[in-house]
Amino acid sequence: MTDHLAERLFAQLRDESFDGVGITRECYTPAETRALELVEAEARRLGLETSWDTGANLWATLPGSDPTLPAVACGSHLDSVPQGGNFDGAAGVLAGLLALGQLRREGFQPRRSLRLLALRGEESAFYGQAYLGSSALFGRLRAEDLAAANVATGRSLGEAMRSVGIDTDRVERGEVLLNPASLACWLELHIEQGPVLVARDMPAAVVTGIRGNLRHRAVECLGEAGHSGAVPRWLRHDAVFAVAELITRLDRHWRTLLERGRDLVLTSGIIGTDPREHAMARIPGRMTFSLDIRSQSPETLEAFYDLFLSECAGLAEERGVRFEPGRRVDAAPAQMDAALIARLRANLQAMGQPDEPIPSGAGHDAAVFANAGVPSGMIFVRNANGSHNPKEAMEMSDFHVGAELLRRTLRELAA
Amino acid sequence: MTDHLAERLFAQLRDESFDGVGITRECYTPAETRALELVEAEARRLGLETSWDTGANLWATLPGSDPTLPAVACGSHLDSVPQGGNFDGAAGVLAGLLALGQLRREGFQPRRSLRLLALRGEESAFYGQAYLGSSALFGRLRAEDLAAANVATGRSLGEAMRSVGIDTDRVERGEVLLNPASLACWLELHIEQGPVLVARDMPAAVVTGIRGNLRHRAVECLGEAGHSGAVPRWLRHDAVFAVAELITRLDRHWRTLLERGRDLVLTSGIIGTDPREHAMARIPGRMTFSLDIRSQSPETLEAFYDLFLSECAGLAEERGVRFEPGRRVDAAPAQMDAALIARLRANLQAMGQPDEPIPSGAGHDAAVFANAGVPSGMIFVRNANGSHNPKEAMEMSDFHVGAELLRRTLRELAA
Repeated sequence: MTDHLAERLFAQLRDESFDGVGITRECYTPAETRALELVEAEARRLGLETSWDTGANLWATLPGSDPTLPAVACGSHLDSVPQGGNFDGAAGVLAGLLALGQLRREGFQPRRSLRLLALRGEESAFYGQAYLGSSALFGRLRAEDLAAANVATGRSLGEAMRSVGIDTDRVERGEVLLNPASLACWLELHIEQGPVLVARDMPAAVVTGIRGNLRHRAVECLGEAGHSGAVPRWLRHDAVFAVAELITRLDRHWRTLLERGRDLVLTSGIIGTDPREHAMARIPGRMTFSLDIRSQSPETLEAFYDLFLSECAGLAEERGVRFEPGRRVDAAPAQMDAALIARLRANLQAMGQPDEPIPSGAGHDAAVFANAGVPSGMIFVRNANGSHNPKEAMEMSDFHVGAELLRRTLRELAA
Repeated sequence: MTDHLAERLFAQLRDESFDGVGITRECYTPAETRALELVEAEARRLGLETSWDTGANLWATLPGSDPTLPAVACGSHLDSVPQGGNFDGAAGVLAGLLALGQLRREGFQPRRSLRLLALRGEESAFYGQAYLGSSALFGRLRAEDLAAANVATGRSLGEAMRSVGIDTDRVERGEVLLNPASLACWLELHIEQGPVLVARDMPAAVVTGIRGNLRHRAVECLGEAGHSGAVPRWLRHDAVFAVAELITRLDRHWRTLLERGRDLVLTSGIIGTDPREHAMARIPGRMTFSLDIRSQSPETLEAFYDLFLSECAGLAEERGVRFEPGRRVDAAPAQMDAALIARLRANLQAMGQPDEPIPSGAGHDAAVFANAGVPSGMIFVRNANGSHNPKEAMEMSDFHVGAELLRRTLRELAA
């Protein structure tokens, strides 16, 4: 029964938002609204109460016997990147829906209200910023965020929000639209966007924290151009060799920090010489690279960032080049609540499943809830082929392991 | 007198080929022809015989008393890259013109004919291949070379050659248009295109050899793309980290070989991730880089190339990536003639100048003459700011040191 419900809902969501290549549920558009309405209709069918909040997000509630107590909340987002997959976000919403529906069917009477939140606007693909829906709820968006232009249409985020009925004056003023104290906790199930659970052969895992990041969009290395044949090594100021050595040194530091048990990932996703001036026989006098440093620990982020700056300074001197990092952009890490982690792990073990908690490298709304002071926990479900592409591959049997873990834990927390 | 002549001729050449930014004397075009004709007129004024060869190059001759002996030849090229400098090539032609003119004025009667050759088409900028003029003379161009399209206009090299009167059927058949045995030697003066003479404070230097090169236009490194936050180090196949480590290892080998006295330079002038798929938060699954390995020694070139392949194989295994080098392109190194080197050095020392011979990293027509069996020698003149740009900076006093060395040596060789 429940199994078929999940499959039917995933199929309906897919049918409604297939774009010819993958899934597109752009935030603050009718496509996203249709997905929310599909969940709303199903929630009502399951006997849950539904409502829409000031941020145009959907809530489904199984009311508790003591409405004065903070609610136990769960959920995720229903928007997607363009040409994305059907599970990123939606899995957490449907897992919550199934859990509340089943608890109601079982005749479970919670003391605390059990609430599912289906959020809008988690993905950064359209406006260059993530967590829009949850940030709006906690009063964390500013005028400059609302002014951000859609990468495709140029329409502002504010306009898009107004088009789904949001009062953006309140958002812009930073009004707290959802009181963190009204929630006892936030539980979010999400597909893993990395390969760890596949590699470790685990259907699900409890998340320890969500990595923050330090980023530079384009660090510039400036050396001196010259004829590739005519300048000997001792007179070169080769930007490519300097950057190659920098990355290799950072890789060595990364390995060392991992061996010491630190959490860290490091990526230079965009790198290159300038097509307007590079040539096969020209010593590159300039190259740029992006840097994305992520860790669950603010201390590790800062320590690694210091290593980066210090290696830049060392190489600048050794190689006669100059590094210009440009603007640094930060996103704070978030720790999942220790008591929730312990409870989730105990339940996972009780289900006879392997239990090895892992950090989340990708960002999730749970980071916003945690940083707003709501004790938060996350469940990852195994998923092959990464996310943000149509090849996302979550097995339904794995989904049900995660959904059952969510259901059990919600029941305990609300009892 | 002579000083003013050189200055006037350089100025006339500049005036004729200034393009608004730098100097453009595109090969096999009227701009190049005008430069040759300017030299021809001056040669006649100086009392030299002039003629045009089957490759449409200009010769100026001071006839020897024994016309059965192979001639002593000197020269360089008159074409330039787009927006280049005025001295690259032209310095060697004018130095030869001055030398022959002065020897005639002195009443010197050579036994061997003294011949100046002003070549076309040395630069690779327009057709992707260097040494076109000298290669055509020695029957080294093929149909596929003549079919090469001009990077700007798309016109073929063959068409361009025909437009200045060359019978390209003969070129395409590989006919030897200039018998190497007709030349006793070839001496070429050229500005240094690197910074060595500036760094060592030497006006001129004798060249020991011309580096050959092994090149790959675009080596591809294939790893696996992924979410920058979600994939831990042990599951990554990051193309950028692999290439960075490869370049750093090659740099270490390079340093080691230099310490062992080998001649080598290494450049990766074009490198980057693919703008169609790269992103700051995406582990790069693919990147490409060019490789330009140069040495005077074929053995060093091959040894270093083997190191390159072996490091690629090692890193492929360690990092789970794959390297696809693509087509390898070779240009043979050339040794300058030992007796000519000795004679040039002795003359340079006799002039009271510092003498420290250096290799040529850049390619020159002298490599084609040497590899065709003509004993060859080269003189470098100090030049700041490299070449192939309008900022080339040769001092006239340095030019005259080189030109006087050429004159003395030609006189001895032809006597």
